[in-house]
Amino acid sequence: MNKKPWNVGLIGCGFMGRAHSNAYRKVGNFFDLPLQPVLKAACARTRSDVTAFANNWGYESVETDWRRMIDRKDIDAIDICTPNDTHREIALAAAAAGKAILCEKPLARTAAEGADMIAAVERAKVPNIVWYNYRRVPAVTLAKQLIDAGKLGRIFHYRAVFLQDWTISSELPQGGTGLWRLDKNVAGSGVTGDLLAHCIDTAMWLNGGIDSVTAMTETFVKERKHNLTGKVEAVGIDDACAFLARFGNGSLGTFESTRYARGHKALYTFEINGEHASIRWDLHDLHRLEYFDHRDDSLTRGWRSIHVTDREMPYMSHWWVPGLQIGYEHSFVHQVADFLEALGQGKEAAPTFRQAQLTQEVCEAVLKSAASKQWVDVAGE
Amino acid sequence: MNKKPWNVGLIGCGFMGRAHSNAYRKVGNFFDLPLQPVLKAACARTRSDVTAFANNWGYESVETDWRRMIDRKDIDAIDICTPNDTHREIALAAAAAGKAILCEKPLARTAAEGADMIAAVERAKVPNIVWYNYRRVPAVTLAKQLIDAGKLGRIFHYRAVFLQDWTISSELPQGGTGLWRLDKNVAGSGVTGDLLAHCIDTAMWLNGGIDSVTAMTETFVKERKHNLTGKVEAVGIDDACAFLARFGNGSLGTFESTRYARGHKALYTFEINGEHASIRWDLHDLHRLEYFDHRDDSLTRGWRSIHVTDREMPYMSHWWVPGLQIGYEHSFVHQVADFLEALGQGKEAAPTFRQAQLTQEVCEAVLKSAASKQWVDVAGE
Amino acid sequence: MNKKPWNVGLIGCGFMGRAHSNAYRKVGNFFDLPLQPVLKAACARTRSDVTAFANNWGYESVETDWRRMIDRKDIDAIDICTPNDTHREIALAAAAAGKAILCEKPLARTAAEGADMIAAVERAKVPNIVWYNYRRVPAVTLAKQLIDAGKLGRIFHYRAVFLQDWTISSELPQGGTGLWRLDKNVAGSGVTGDLLAHCIDTAMWLNGGIDSVTAMTETFVKERKHNLTGKVEAVGIDDACAFLARFGNGSLGTFESTRYARGHKALYTFEINGEHASIRWDLHDLHRLEYFDHRDDSLTRGWRSIHVTDREMPYMSHWWVPGLQIGYEHSFVHQVADFLEALGQGKEAAPTFRQAQLTQEVCEAVLKSAASKQWVDVAGE
Amino acid sequence: MNKKPWNVGLIGCGFMGRAHSNAYRKVGNFFDLPLQPVLKAACARTRSDVTAFANNWGYESVETDWRRMIDRKDIDAIDICTPNDTHREIALAAAAAGKAILCEKPLARTAAEGADMIAAVERAKVPNIVWYNYRRVPAVTLAKQLIDAGKLGRIFHYRAVFLQDWTISSELPQGGTGLWRLDKNVAGSGVTGDLLAHCIDTAMWLNGGIDSVTAMTETFVKERKHNLTGKVEAVGIDDACAFLARFGNGSLGTFESTRYARGHKALYTFEINGEHASIRWDLHDLHRLEYFDHRDDSLTRGWRSIHVTDREMPYMSHWWVPGLQIGYEHSFVHQVADFLEALGQGKEAAPTFRQAQLTQEVCEAVLKSAASKQWVDVAGE
Repeated sequence: MNKKPWNVGLIGCGFMGRAHSNAYRKVGNFFDLPLQPVLKAACARTRSDVTAFANNWGYESVETDWRRMIDRKDIDAIDICTPNDTHREIALAAAAAGKAILCEKPLARTAAEGADMIAAVERAKVPNIVWYNYRRVPAVTLAKQLIDAGKLGRIFHYRAVFLQDWTISSELPQGGTGLWRLDKNVAGSGVTGDLLAHCIDTAMWLNGGIDSVTAMTETFVKERKHNLTGKVEAVGIDDACAFLARFGNGSLGTFESTRYARGHKALYTFEINGEHASIRWDLHDLHRLEYFDHRDDSLTRGWRSIHVTDREMPYMSHWWVPGLQIGYEHSFVHQVADFLEALGQGKEAAPTFRQAQLTQEVCEAVLKSAASKQWVDVAGE
Repeated sequence: MNKKPWNVGLIGCGFMGRAHSNAYRKVGNFFDLPLQPVLKAACARTRSDVTAFANNWGYESVETDWRRMIDRKDIDAIDICTPNDTHREIALAAAAAGKAILCEKPLARTAAEGADMIAAVERAKVPNIVWYNYRRVPAVTLAKQLIDAGKLGRIFHYRAVFLQDWTISSELPQGGTGLWRLDKNVAGSGVTGDLLAHCIDTAMWLNGGIDSVTAMTETFVKERKHNLTGKVEAVGIDDACAFLARFGNGSLGTFESTRYARGHKALYTFEINGEHASIRWDLHDLHRLEYFDHRDDSLTRGWRSIHVTDREMPYMSHWWVPGLQIGYEHSFVHQVADFLEALGQGKEAAPTFRQAQLTQEVCEAVLKSAASKQWVDVAGE
Repeated sequence: MNKKPWNVGLIGCGFMGRAHSNAYRKVGNFFDLPLQPVLKAACARTRSDVTAFANNWGYESVETDWRRMIDRKDIDAIDICTPNDTHREIALAAAAAGKAILCEKPLARTAAEGADMIAAVERAKVPNIVWYNYRRVPAVTLAKQLIDAGKLGRIFHYRAVFLQDWTISSELPQGGTGLWRLDKNVAGSGVTGDLLAHCIDTAMWLNGGIDSVTAMTETFVKERKHNLTGKVEAVGIDDACAFLARFGNGSLGTFESTRYARGHKALYTFEINGEHASIRWDLHDLHRLEYFDHRDDSLTRGWRSIHVTDREMPYMSHWWVPGLQIGYEHSFVHQVADFLEALGQGKEAAPTFRQAQLTQEVCEAVLKSAASKQWVDVAGE
Repeated sequence: MNKKPWNVGLIGCGFMGRAHSNAYRKVGNFFDLPLQPVLKAACARTRSDVTAFANNWGYESVETDWRRMIDRKDIDAIDICTPNDTHREIALAAAAAGKAILCEKPLARTAAEGADMIAAVERAKVPNIVWYNYRRVPAVTLAKQLIDAGKLGRIFHYRAVFLQDWTISSELPQGGTGLWRLDKNVAGSGVTGDLLAHCIDTAMWLNGGIDSVTAMTETFVKERKHNLTGKVEAVGIDDACAFLARFGNGSLGTFESTRYARGHKALYTFEINGEHASIRWDLHDLHRLEYFDHRDDSLTRGWRSIHVTDREMPYMSHWWVPGLQIGYEHSFVHQVADFLEALGQGKEAAPTFRQAQLTQEVCEAVLKSAASKQWVDVAGE
C-alpha cells in the first residue's frame, strides 16, 4: 500500500456512499494500480450521521457542508452520491475547484442540467465519470467483448427490462431519506432516470446510439403521503415506463421498467439477437452470461450458460478461483480500478459525463414521447 | 368407440392438417365425449398429395375442390387449414351449407374479412371456433384459472414475446408451399398475424381487452426470390413487430415478435404481474408454469416452477401420471375435446369467430400504428 | 394405411396398456413402416374392464384368459403389460406359440426368471423386446449418438437418480390394482426393479457393463394395510435404494432411487462426465439435453441447453417443427417404430430379452449387496 | 473503527490467506462487532513473498518463521492457512501460547492429528474454530433455519456432490505451491479431505451424525511428475470418492466428489428430502435456495427459487438491497463476524475443533471403507 495516495471526498452517505466506500477500500487489495484511494473525508448534512459513517468506513475527517469539502486542498476527487437534484450544483463547484469527479447515475435530472455539467468538467479539464456500474459486471463486460469481436454479426434486436416491486403498496410514502426516488422534484423522474437509465447506458454501449423512441408511462398510485410535508400529495414520477426504439444500426429495441412487477427485486435483463449469435444477461444471476451461437454443430447447438468465473474472464483473474462467484459490489470495485488505471495513464475512463449525457437525452426523449404520445427523435449533440 | 359419429372434412393438408388430424384421431382415446370424430374426407388441390395424406391418416375419402367437399351431405364440420387468403371464402361457403367450422388462426387476413365471416356463421347459426391452441396448453389454462380465482389481484403489467429465427437467411425465398407466410398477399401480414395473434389472443383471454397501441414493424430482408414467379420481389410482410398497449383494466402491455431472434425456435413467453402474485410461461418448456406469490412467508418466498402434470391440473387427469409431460400436439386434442363437449351441450367453445375477431382488431390497430407512427385506438364492436 | 397388418394381442389394461395402445394407434401416422399394427385383441381378467378398454382404444376383440389369446392364430405379437409376477409364465407360453413378444420392464422379478424367458424366446426364435422406453426419448438417443461419436472421450463418471414421492404417506396401502408395485411377491422388489432398472438400462447402453456394486436399501414405512388381505402386513419392498458401481470401462457410477423424495414426481436424471465433454438429462424436461464441451472457446464455454426439437435430432423429423416439444408417450411410439422397422428387415431391436437381462443381473447384485452389506460382482453370462 | 483491537497473525499467504485477509479487513464495515480485527502480522517462508502479501493487504509486520509469530505477545489470534500437514504442529504451539486459533479446513490430515489438536485447545482453553465457510453462505444458513424450524418433518434423504474438473490433464504435476492438494503426504487425502469434508460438515450440521459408510475411491491418473523431486511419481491421493451413508436419524445419504467432472468448477450441491418439504442448494448459484413445500396448495405447488437477498434473510441486512447478490468471499466475512460476536460474549462459534473432528472421523471411515471394501462404522467420541 505504498502507492501514491489519491484522496477521496465523498458527498452523500446513503446506500451508494456505502457501495463506493467499499470499492475504494477494497480495490487496492485486488488490483495493482498506480494510485491508492485514501478515504479523506465524508460529507453529509447531519454531523452525527456523517461521523458514524466516517467512523464505520475509516474516513479521516468529516464535513457537513459540501462546499467546504470542495474547498479543501487535500482532496483530489469528489464522489457525488447525493440525490439527483444536487448533482449539477456540486459538480459545477467541484469542477471549478479542479477536482476529479465521480458522479452517481443518472448524471442529472434533465439533459439541460447534464449539459451544464459537461461544460463545467470539460472547461476545467477534470477527470470525470458516471457510476453506470453494470458495465463492469464481468458477464456484461464479456458481452461487450463478444460483440466487439464480431461474434454476433448484424444486430436485429435489443430488449431490456428492469423490474422491481418495492412500491406496490399505496401505504408507502414519498420523499425524504430513502424515498427521494419517489419525489419528482428531487429525482427528476421515476423509473426512467433510476432504472431505464441503466438499461439505456448498457444498450448504447453494446449496440450504439438510439435514434427515436415511442413511450408510455404510468403512475399506478396517484397520491402518496409526502414525508417532508406530512401531507398526501400527487405523485409526480413515472411508476412504470416502456418504450420502443430504433437504433442507429437499424436494429429494434424494446425497453421496460417498473416498480410494480411482483416477484422481481432488481431484475435487470437484456438480450441482443444477431445474425450469428445471441446473448442474454440477468442481474439476478449476474455471474452468468447466456450465449447461443448458430455456427455450432447442429446436433449440439443450444444456449450456453457461461459461468463467468474463469481467470480468462474480464476482471476475474483478480478474484478467486473458477466456480466461485463475485457479486454486485464488485462492479464498483472494477469501476474504481479502471478509473485509476486510466488516470495513471492520463486517459479517460468511460462513461464520462459526455458519454453519460447520451443516456440523459434518450431519457428525455422517452419522457417527452410519453407525454406527447408521439415518436420523438433523440437529440443529437 | 360407439359414440355418435361426427364427420370431419379437412381442407388443407399441410402442417396444421397433420396437427388437427392427430387430434381428431386421438381425442376419443383420452376423453369421454358425446361425439366421436370421424375422418370423413380430406381436401387439397393435388390429388396425389391429398391421397397420400388421407391414406396416412385414415381419411375415408378425398376431394381436390373444397367446394365439392362443402356440398357433401355426409360432412358435419369443415376444418379450414389452408393459408389465410382462403379463410373467408371457405368459411362463407361452409356456413351457408350449415357446417360447423373450425378455422385455423388467424381468423383472416384483415378485420374486414373477419367481420364477413362472423356475419356468415352467426346468420347460419353454425358452431364455430378458431384454433388458438395455446389457450389449452395445461399450464396456460392453469394461468387462466389462477387469474380468475383472483390470486393475482389488481394487474399492473402484461408482457409477451414470440421469437423465432427461421427467416434470417436472405437466401430463403418467399411464397408457395411452406413459405406462404412470407407472402403478404396470402398471409395478410408477417409476424403480426402469425405470431403476435397468438400472444394477443392469450393476453386478452387472461387480462381483458386492449384499448390502444403504439407499434413499430421492420422488414430486415427487403427482397426475396418469390417461389411462384421465380423473380426477386419486394418483401411485403413485417419480419418483426413490437408494440406497447394499454389494457382496459389499466394495466400496461408490451408485445414483440420476430423471426430474427437467433437461438429461439418458438419462444412464446408471457408474464403477468399482479398486486399479489405474478405468472410466467414459456412455450419451450410448455409443461411448466412459474408462479410467485407475495403472500408466501417471507423466508421461503420465491418463484415456483410448477410442473403441470399432476392430475388436479387442467386436462392432465386424461393423460399419464404425475411427472410425465405432454407436448405441443395435446393442445389441439384439448381443443377438440372442449369443442365436442360444448357441442354436445348445445354450447359454444371459445374462441368463437366473434371472440377471435378481437385479435384481428388489435392486429389491425398495430399495423396501422406502425404505418402511421401514431397511437391507434383498437376498434370497438 | 394399406401396409401389411401386424396383429397385436395386449395383455394387461392398466397404465402401460394405455401407453402401448396409444403407440400402436399412432405410429403409422408418423412413421413409414413395413407393417401396420392392428389392435386385434385386449386381455384382462375382468370382462367389463377389458371390454371398456377395448372399446376405448378400438381393439377388435377381448379375452379374459391370456392363455386363450396366446392360442389364437390371428395374433402376431403378444404385448405383456401385466404385473411382474406373470411375465415369465406368459412369455414362455407366447414363445412356445411362436408369437413375437414385447414385454414391459423389468423383464422379470429375478434374474432366474429372466434366464428362463431368454431360453424360451431364443429356442423359439421369436422377435422379442423389453419396453425400456427412455432409450428412445430423443434427447437420450442423442446422448447415445454423441457418446458413440466419441465426443466425450474417456469416461470418468456416471450418475443417475430416479426420485419420486408418491408413497410417503403411511396411510397408503399395498397390493392390488394400482398398488402392486408395493407388494414384494408381485413386484419382486421395490424401486430397484421399478425405477433403478430404467437407470441401469440407460447406463449400460450409454456406458457399457457394470462389474461390481455396493448398495443399501431402506423400507421407511415398515407396515401397510394390504389391499388383498385387508390386514396390516410387513412391507417387503425396498422404498429406497442407492448403490455405487464400477463400470467395465473404469468409470465410477452412483445410482439412487426412492419414492420418498418430496417434490419429485418422476425425476429421472443422469449425467456422464468424459475427458472432453459431459452430458446431463432430466425426465422432467425430457425435451432438453445439456451438453458441455471443454473444446469450446474458453470465453464462451458453458453448459448448452439443447432444445431437442430440430429436424436433425433423433426421431424429430417425424413430428412437428423446431421449438415444439413432444412428451413422454412418444418414447413408446419410437419403440414400436424401431421394432417394426427391424422386424421388416429381419433384425432385432434393442433391448432384447437377453440385453435386458443385463439389467436384471445388476439389480440382483444390488439387492444381494444391500442384504449382505458386501460388494457384489455382477454375474456374467 | 474505535472498537477494541483484535490482533491477527496469519500463517500462510496463498489462496486462503487472501480470502481470510479480505474478511478481516471488511467485516467491521458491515457488522457492528465488539472487536476490530487488526492485521498485525503475516507469515510465510519466503521473505519477499510475505512482504509483498503484507504490503498488499496492510499487515503491519511480517515473519518468516511461524514459531516466532506465535511467540509474539502482540498477537491475539493465529489463523492457520498453511497446507494440511502443518495444521497440527502449528495449532499445538499456538494453543500452548494461549492464542485463539482459526484453522483452515480440513482440521488435519487424519483423525489422530485432529484429536491431538482438540486436546491442545481444550487444555489451553483457547477459542478455536475451523473455516467450514459454506455454513455461512446465507442460503445455506437459511436451509439450517428452515430445518430447525421443523419445516421438512422427518428426513428421508440427503445427497451431496462436489464436482470439479481441474486435474483431468495428465500433464498437470503434483506437489509444491498451488499443487500440494495432489500430494498425499501434504494433503493427507485427495477429494475426501478437500471437498467431501465440506459436504460432510454441512450434512451433519443440517442432518445430524453419520453412523456408517461404504465408499469407493479412484485415482484416474496414476502417476504425475512431482514438482519437488522433478520425478514422475505415483499419485497417492483419491481423485474421486463416492460413498453411501446411514445417518443417525434413519435417513440415507449419498455423497460424491471428483476433480474429473468436466464442466464443473466448484459444483457443490446438496439436497435434503423431508416428509413435508425438500431443499436444494448449489454453490454455482450460491445466492439461491430451492425449496419445495408439499403443504402448498396443489394447483400452485412447485419448487421455489428463493433469491436469498432480502433483508430478512440470514446476514443479508448487513449488505445491499433485495435483488443484489453477494458472493463467495462473504461467507468468510460472516464467519469472522460470528466468531468475534461469540468471542465478545465469551461463547464458542461453530464449528470448533471438536465439532470439526466429526468430519475427520467420517472422512477416515470413508477412506477405510474404500480401502477395505467393507461398510465401516464412524468412530464415536
